Amino acid sequence: MERLQPPCLIYFGDVADLGHAKTGLGLIQWRSEFCVGQLRAPGCQVDGGLRDMTIDEAIAAGVRSLVIGVAPAGGNIPETWRSDLARAARAGLDIVSGMHARLADVPEIAAAARESGVRLIDIRTPPKNIPIGTGAKRPGKRLLTVGTDCAVGKKYTALAIEREMRSRGWNADFRATGQTGIMISGGGIPIDSVVSDFISGAAEMLSPAAADDHWDVIEGQGSLSHPSFAGVSLGLLHGAQPDALVLCHDPSRKFLLGTEPGGSFPILPLTQTIEQCLAHAWRVNANARFVGVSVNTSRIPSEERMRLYEKIARETDLPVVDPIKDGVEAIIDNLSSEAAS
Amino acid sequence: MERLQPPCLIYFGDVADLGHAKTGLGLIQWRSEFCVGQLRAPGCQVDGGLRDMTIDEAIAAGVRSLVIGVAPAGGNIPETWRSDLARAARAGLDIVSGMHARLADVPEIAAAARESGVRLIDIRTPPKNIPIGTGAKRPGKRLLTVGTDCAVGKKYTALAIEREMRSRGWNADFRATGQTGIMISGGGIPIDSVVSDFISGAAEMLSPAAADDHWDVIEGQGSLSHPSFAGVSLGLLHGAQPDALVLCHDPSRKFLLGTEPGGSFPILPLTQTIEQCLAHAWRVNANARFVGVSVNTSRIPSEERMRLYEKIARETDLPVVDPIKDGVEAIIDNLSSEAAS
Repeated sequence: MERLQPPCLIYFGDVADLGHAKTGLGLIQWRSEFCVGQLRAPGCQVDGGLRDMTIDEAIAAGVRSLVIGVAPAGGNIPETWRSDLARAARAGLDIVSGMHARLADVPEIAAAARESGVRLIDIRTPPKNIPIGTGAKRPGKRLLTVGTDCAVGKKYTALAIEREMRSRGWNADFRATGQTGIMISGGGIPIDSVVSDFISGAAEMLSPAAADDHWDVIEGQGSLSHPSFAGVSLGLLHGAQPDALVLCHDPSRKFLLGTEPGGSFPILPLTQTIEQCLAHAWRVNANARFVGVSVNTSRIPSEERMRLYEKIARETDLPVVDPIKDGVEAIIDNLSSEAAS
Repeated sequence: MERLQPPCLIYFGDVADLGHAKTGLGLIQWRSEFCVGQLRAPGCQVDGGLRDMTIDEAIAAGVRSLVIGVAPAGGNIPETWRSDLARAARAGLDIVSGMHARLADVPEIAAAARESGVRLIDIRTPPKNIPIGTGAKRPGKRLLTVGTDCAVGKKYTALAIEREMRSRGWNADFRATGQTGIMISGGGIPIDSVVSDFISGAAEMLSPAAADDHWDVIEGQGSLSHPSFAGVSLGLLHGAQPDALVLCHDPSRKFLLGTEPGGSFPILPLTQTIEQCLAHAWRVNANARFVGVSVNTSRIPSEERMRLYEKIARETDLPVVDPIKDGVEAIIDNLSSEAAS
């Protein structure tokens, strides 16, 4: 897979919500040094906090790549984006996409890239020759972030945990499973793009046998209770063979992302999510246990935050943090105290 | 997808066990009128009960297609088969494969087919434009076969249920999800070949909205407790939204197919498998319930069969049949009595 070439212009198109803008927002959060501007179409409801730029302004500012910052369910490239992307390619920017659809399959984008000689980089391309998963136990330790829904902070939490582990001198690597994580870390496997017979095999390949004290910190995907994506979540859980799990949750969300309010898919209670994950995790690792809860409190009034933590801690008997506001020290403290005991 | 052209020669290669020969054996069971001979390489431990034929004898007998009757985990085309398949193609037989690997990607097979003008038919090719699953409830009734393991009779049971429902005048269709089922029924989606983000969407596409009294009888895949394939099983379960489930089980098997005896993966107890399936099925259909157990008793001494049925019936409170020896009347009787009550 080709690597993206900074500096970047983040393309938000006409995205209406933060959840679907997570690719661009994630890259800005974790690789702000890559990101010099944003391009937003009429109707865009998201602001990544970067300078708004036209394509010409971006070129003048030295930008090399336009990164599609939106991850719509289904991963198609909407009609409304195509002329913007073709224009950027024609102007000399590499186009970087995390969509399922291939950039080169959109004729006007392909033609523009041919004309100007820029690269079309599809991040969501899995490696060839992924094996079938075996479930065989392999050395090294693994932590997997799981969620009550999509887009609840599984990637952010895993990156924060890698950073915290490394700051303590631990031997730890973030393992990306989605397009944003791959853009941030420069490696990984887009697990939702793998042929479904090979999901757990891809997770095993992503996180191979390692030294006994090495931690792979694996980015989770979807949710076991999400009817669109649960297969990916379960295959990843089996292949990851986690020793430790961290539950990620957005307490402001009452229904699964992309399903109707009042519809059939309320977010499951945390304890039920934990039980469901453990039941499957124990199939591949009898020692699997949860070590913390990571909540996204961006939509919770600050005076309610501590009460929320206490409630969740009481329910789950686990340390609770918002990784953006609190860091993840409490989770790693818990993990070390368990490891020591 | 191109259809296979009978009559067929079934290729068993050097397969060592019945479980992996299920494609050939399934086609012989359900479409015996298609199958006139078998080709077995040295070391083959399986006998489909057909006349052993060389390629020349098959041609002389009017055979049009060689069907690969083996489904190895991983779906690659072993080196040892390649010269046989190329020879058959050169001699004028279409080659029909349910492997993940494409026949045309094997140079000697591709060259032979070009030379003689035969077709290379890859059954395991999913449709384009599968949508992301939505979980939205759709009209029509659905029955899904699920298993305690791979290769325990999920396809056979579903085909037998379709036949029984139709014999009662019900409006019912078998929905194939694997290569053998697709060869038998001439349609379906190879669910394990779908990109993993789209598993449940593929199941929704396979079994679209239908008349209220119509039954889709959906072929299950893998097992929720199988660490190689559980992601496929869960995505299919969510997308199928089953009203009724039938549990398929091979009581002679103590460990998952392909995992070592004495290893980490014993077959789960039936009641635990049922609970696990229902917990996930209820997420998409609050009325989902099991209506029967289908056991493969081919390796059980006949004097133990009734005692086994009684034991399973006591544990599960469900009718128990071996669909080959008993048919599936008892399961459909149970389903109708529930529907009537």
